[in-house]
Amino acid sequence: MHNDRLEKIRSNMKKREIEQLIITCPDSIFYLLDEWIHPGERMMALYVNQEDKPKLILNALFPIERDLGVEIINYDDTEDPISYLRKLMNTNQTMGIDKEWPSRFLISLMEQEPKVKVVNSSIAVDASRMIKTSKEIQLMREASAVNDRAMGELVEFLKDPKHSELEMGNLLGAIYKKYNTPQFSFDPLICYGANAAEPHHSSDETKLSSDQSIIIDIGGITNNYASDMTRSFFYGQPTEEYENIYKLVHEANLAAIEKVKPGVKFSDIDKAARSIIEAAGYGPYFTHRTGHNIGISCHEYPDVSSVNDMEVQEGMVFSIEPGIYLSGKYGVRIEDLVLVTKEGCEVLNKYPKTLRLL
Amino acid sequence: MHNDRLEKIRSNMKKREIEQLIITCPDSIFYLLDEWIHPGERMMALYVNQEDKPKLILNALFPIERDLGVEIINYDDTEDPISYLRKLMNTNQTMGIDKEWPSRFLISLMEQEPKVKVVNSSIAVDASRMIKTSKEIQLMREASAVNDRAMGELVEFLKDPKHSELEMGNLLGAIYKKYNTPQFSFDPLICYGANAAEPHHSSDETKLSSDQSIIIDIGGITNNYASDMTRSFFYGQPTEEYENIYKLVHEANLAAIEKVKPGVKFSDIDKAARSIIEAAGYGPYFTHRTGHNIGISCHEYPDVSSVNDMEVQEGMVFSIEPGIYLSGKYGVRIEDLVLVTKEGCEVLNKYPKTLRLL
Repeated sequence: MHNDRLEKIRSNMKKREIEQLIITCPDSIFYLLDEWIHPGERMMALYVNQEDKPKLILNALFPIERDLGVEIINYDDTEDPISYLRKLMNTNQTMGIDKEWPSRFLISLMEQEPKVKVVNSSIAVDASRMIKTSKEIQLMREASAVNDRAMGELVEFLKDPKHSELEMGNLLGAIYKKYNTPQFSFDPLICYGANAAEPHHSSDETKLSSDQSIIIDIGGITNNYASDMTRSFFYGQPTEEYENIYKLVHEANLAAIEKVKPGVKFSDIDKAARSIIEAAGYGPYFTHRTGHNIGISCHEYPDVSSVNDMEVQEGMVFSIEPGIYLSGKYGVRIEDLVLVTKEGCEVLNKYPKTLRLL
Repeated sequence: MHNDRLEKIRSNMKKREIEQLIITCPDSIFYLLDEWIHPGERMMALYVNQEDKPKLILNALFPIERDLGVEIINYDDTEDPISYLRKLMNTNQTMGIDKEWPSRFLISLMEQEPKVKVVNSSIAVDASRMIKTSKEIQLMREASAVNDRAMGELVEFLKDPKHSELEMGNLLGAIYKKYNTPQFSFDPLICYGANAAEPHHSSDETKLSSDQSIIIDIGGITNNYASDMTRSFFYGQPTEEYENIYKLVHEANLAAIEKVKPGVKFSDIDKAARSIIEAAGYGPYFTHRTGHNIGISCHEYPDVSSVNDMEVQEGMVFSIEPGIYLSGKYGVRIEDLVLVTKEGCEVLNKYPKTLRLL
């Protein structure tokens, strides 16, 4: 167990008057215990309060070989794991719940303990996870360096347009594997032509044709930390309109990055990007938030959005990913990960951002 | 939309006095709408009651190209999707919640509507999903036929012991792709030697050595339906003890299958397998339930376990997967999918179950 992280979580609990909580999502449990446990639909809950050693309720089918620094409470398939949680918790206190906990468990707990008030207490964990340690920062730099290299190698395959979007994803998987990156952070978003106008297009059998825009949004898991980067390309000769929106998105990306330093609000970073796109009349076509924090999970707390007035702090890592999507025609998105430093930020992605024609 | 499925769900709601509910998990939404929507951490909820056309609350980033037969209500990243749900729901009625809905949404709803009682209402959907239609049955037969073929081809690679557990998983991925099965139902469980004694061992770099047991538990997604089968092998010359536990597990598998017909309790099917293993003194080493239902999701409602007294019905498809695990030594599990017919059951897996030495 990372005791420093446990103490941060406990200190966050005190600040927010959360006397007890359960951590249930595998990513947060890995963050704390340095052990991946994936019990699927079976309940797992790490119970934390101020006084006692944390206790992990876990189905006996998932044996833990080493000492994790917590007490493990096993149940089997014939038992109700909620009954073990009820024995641990103080029913006179509010119960802090992990934001990811499936409702079937929460509703069962509420039915068995109708007097206990439940609150979403993930903030105590998230506020710890959002400030990366120096070790985590090094791992995130390395993960993004792998992603830069992978983007460079993947783009070479575009010179021959025979590969479908899905095949490009398979090629990417093989590239990542070379760099000790066996898993994607998310299914690769490889979008050709008008598919690039859908920000969350699922890769399909589409092949590249001439005079099409391309969006490549990719990330892998390297040493347990996620990368995430997007670049946009054009196959053939772009229209003036495409060149113009590329320039706008590029400027928006740079303006938002320029804005990042401790004390600035996330909403102001969003505004720095959005105002450039809005001033050019493309506001309605930038349809999503500017970014999200990232670490062990690809999408971590909090968002870089117009409605988040939280201040940026040193040690945060998040994406800056403005885009413009013109339905039926094309799309452009340019995304980097940035690490907040004492005075500003370090851009973790080094892959070039100037418009490249293939 | 599958109107027949909607009507089954509505009829289940009536029977259980659920006046309104939300369906949120992508698999259940696919079951009803025949459309895969994966909005990740962004809220998605299909609101269903008896009177109105179902309404789907969905982030605008996930555009739907075709008419799904439901009204779509879009929100964007600056809005609270719960506010849209509050407008739809009848706050004088109990609110039915999807068992998979993350707690952050449920707790937010409860805070905004403190007087509304919430209940886990997934049973209305699950009770429909658990009885497969003739079209679904055909798809599940085909998915398991692919899995039989994949097992046959994969086992050939074991004759040369150079492949690690993880490499075997990669080889399996390539085999599935040939058969229109681009995704696993679950990460392949390829376990060599003592790893086979952990029922949920995650494949790693372990290579096969002589005189080791092997468990191969694999499944793919073929035309949206999951397969799931386990076979056990031995590389080299097995001990008498191994041969004995293989024989017991094989008998337990056959006895449970023999028991399956409409009207029999799931707990009695579990008992048919378990009693054979218990009688031989290995009860404590059969550490899990006997099986689970399966369909669009690999693990569906309900379980085949000693504590489930529900009666089996025609059209259900579930796994029969007894096992014996001797820690530090070896493990045996033999798993088939069975389809409940009018008089008994059809075993969907045809791959042989007699002990095979490699």
